[in-house]
Amino acid sequence: MPEDSGKELTMVTCSAPVNIAVIKYCEYRMILKTTTTVACSRLFQEDRIWLNGKEEDITQPRLQSCLREIRRLARKRRSDGEADVDTAGLSHKVHICSVNNFPTAAGLASSAAGYACLVYTLSRVMGVEGELSVVSRQGSGSACRSMHGGFVQWIMGQQGDGKDSLAQQVEPETHWPELRVLVLVVSAERKPVGSTSGMQTSVETSILLKHRADSVVPARMKEMIEAVHKRDFTAFAELTMKDSNQFHATCLDTYPPIFYLNDVSRCVINLVHRYNRHYRETKVAYTFDAGPNAVIYTLQQNVEEFVQVVKHFFPPETNGGQFLKGLPVAPTTLSEELKQAIGMEPMVKGICYIISTKAGPGPRVVEDPSEHLLGSDGLPKESA
Amino acid sequence: MPEDSGKELTMVTCSAPVNIAVIKYCEYRMILKTTTTVACSRLFQEDRIWLNGKEEDITQPRLQSCLREIRRLARKRRSDGEADVDTAGLSHKVHICSVNNFPTAAGLASSAAGYACLVYTLSRVMGVEGELSVVSRQGSGSACRSMHGGFVQWIMGQQGDGKDSLAQQVEPETHWPELRVLVLVVSAERKPVGSTSGMQTSVETSILLKHRADSVVPARMKEMIEAVHKRDFTAFAELTMKDSNQFHATCLDTYPPIFYLNDVSRCVINLVHRYNRHYRETKVAYTFDAGPNAVIYTLQQNVEEFVQVVKHFFPPETNGGQFLKGLPVAPTTLSEELKQAIGMEPMVKGICYIISTKAGPGPRVVEDPSEHLLGSDGLPKESA
Repeated sequence: MPEDSGKELTMVTCSAPVNIAVIKYCEYRMILKTTTTVACSRLFQEDRIWLNGKEEDITQPRLQSCLREIRRLARKRRSDGEADVDTAGLSHKVHICSVNNFPTAAGLASSAAGYACLVYTLSRVMGVEGELSVVSRQGSGSACRSMHGGFVQWIMGQQGDGKDSLAQQVEPETHWPELRVLVLVVSAERKPVGSTSGMQTSVETSILLKHRADSVVPARMKEMIEAVHKRDFTAFAELTMKDSNQFHATCLDTYPPIFYLNDVSRCVINLVHRYNRHYRETKVAYTFDAGPNAVIYTLQQNVEEFVQVVKHFFPPETNGGQFLKGLPVAPTTLSEELKQAIGMEPMVKGICYIISTKAGPGPRVVEDPSEHLLGSDGLPKESA
Repeated sequence: MPEDSGKELTMVTCSAPVNIAVIKYCEYRMILKTTTTVACSRLFQEDRIWLNGKEEDITQPRLQSCLREIRRLARKRRSDGEADVDTAGLSHKVHICSVNNFPTAAGLASSAAGYACLVYTLSRVMGVEGELSVVSRQGSGSACRSMHGGFVQWIMGQQGDGKDSLAQQVEPETHWPELRVLVLVVSAERKPVGSTSGMQTSVETSILLKHRADSVVPARMKEMIEAVHKRDFTAFAELTMKDSNQFHATCLDTYPPIFYLNDVSRCVINLVHRYNRHYRETKVAYTFDAGPNAVIYTLQQNVEEFVQVVKHFFPPETNGGQFLKGLPVAPTTLSEELKQAIGMEPMVKGICYIISTKAGPGPRVVEDPSEHLLGSDGLPKESA
């Protein structure tokens, strides 16, 4: 239920998880997240939005689509005579404030988490219930995946307008607690090609993408779901790596070609293959979305060593303490044998920092009012 | 006819062109070349080979296959009673000396030119005539393409052993004299994966390569031959770029993935697309073989400007005079409009130098005895 501050202001804060596609476009939620507060008040003059501390243009079409769709669903519920609908929010303007706990626009599907959180929070403010995947897709295609926690499958649907495209949970985040995630942040620079336009150009020009979509992805999706059900790390890891590579292959087959991987990304790929080859076992996997940052999957027992490997071959620029963010990882020492087996030249400053995380829940309401990002005046708090 | 130096020593020197695949694996010969001298003498104790000034192991299997096959063909001609066979060479050991006028092993199909030249020179020394594509393929798959000049098509054949795989000339080097080639040498470092093992792993693991070979390449080959026949630069250029990108996409779809392009290669690709977009015309094309060096195709009238563009966006490390090798290119000035339209940050030292060249003839005998790479003692001259 929305918090009603003296009737003037209704405010809800929610968080939604980052998602990473392991078969590109069955999914995987992380505890990296977006937090969004939506307030509505009769005193607000207009709809406004602040992202990561900066006011942004509310009139952009995707935002407008999401707002319009949630308001339409709320009106429908009211006219259907559903109980519990907060009619106030319908005629009032909204203020939206959203922050990420990870760098934006560097290939971490930030817009997916952002739109998932926005739609979820708006739905709580306006009393809309039910399947919201379809609405969140108005904002970002992959946002529907951030509407659930754990392992999620995105079912594309048959309709041309994508209205039957939605996300289903394959397993909750508690299914495979040993599975860990490391995000190797290569560059926080904005990526040169927005991923939507990129994907559209790929659909239009890549012959290989069509073959991949028709003949490769359906079988891989089945294998991936089975690997997740069985917690078969080897199968999960190899499929994840092959599918990441094939996705980036279709980007290269686009005309003009799209590049998301850079020389650091390629070093990370080589490092993972050499590490696995040394152990004659697939202990670590990588995947890359629309950017150079690597998302690494490994099991709990390998996290400490692999983080140390990354530190060794990508020595941090300055303070090693700041190099690791998120869940704590204890330092360890590497055998000379392992270092020699990998045998790469260390690349100073190649990786800015590592975010250590794991599978997390889907969107949820943040109950502590002190975590609202907007103040009682409806404007962002200083820290937001 | 081989030059017979007092009967003790028989020596022949030949050159063979570098080839660049425009549909990966219709071909294109360049005036970049390998020169090889073969001498045979009853005084030689054993077969020996010097490559680019350094003695190499003659026992490697590919070299041995070529030597064995040429000797077998020579014996067959002798036993068939063919005239003109130099029987001396058959029982004598050979000394082989070979040099390239371009950097080795940086993705310029140097082994193709090398084996083409070796097989051609051995055939002249031993009096073997006829189709030598099949023999040169024992050394390097793509060597058969360097057995002809101009534009060449490699016909894969039906037999499992590849013995019916050969190269045919589509058009001679005189067909399209306006077509110019610029090799942008990114790095003379040895490539991390030899291209044969790379291709083998791709055949075994890349799903996209199979689709490309079955469904994409045959149609593109037809289109490319038509573009060359008609001298249609736009069609030639776009097919060349798309096919280069698709080849590298299948390398990335290999498991583990193979990378030949690096960040400099990608900057060159972006530069070409931005240049073409500025003119709203496909004036320049790129292709990359198994390495980071770019091979640029353009018409004569665009060479000066494009070379200046490369100089501007990849400023030479030191002496600009040494930056351009091969056919001379006059300096020019660039409009501010063009520089702004490209709008890339200049990348100092990204490109070591440019080789300016064009289509050249196939293998031929070098008639001037002063160009022999071996001295009258059968050992490499100091300059070789």
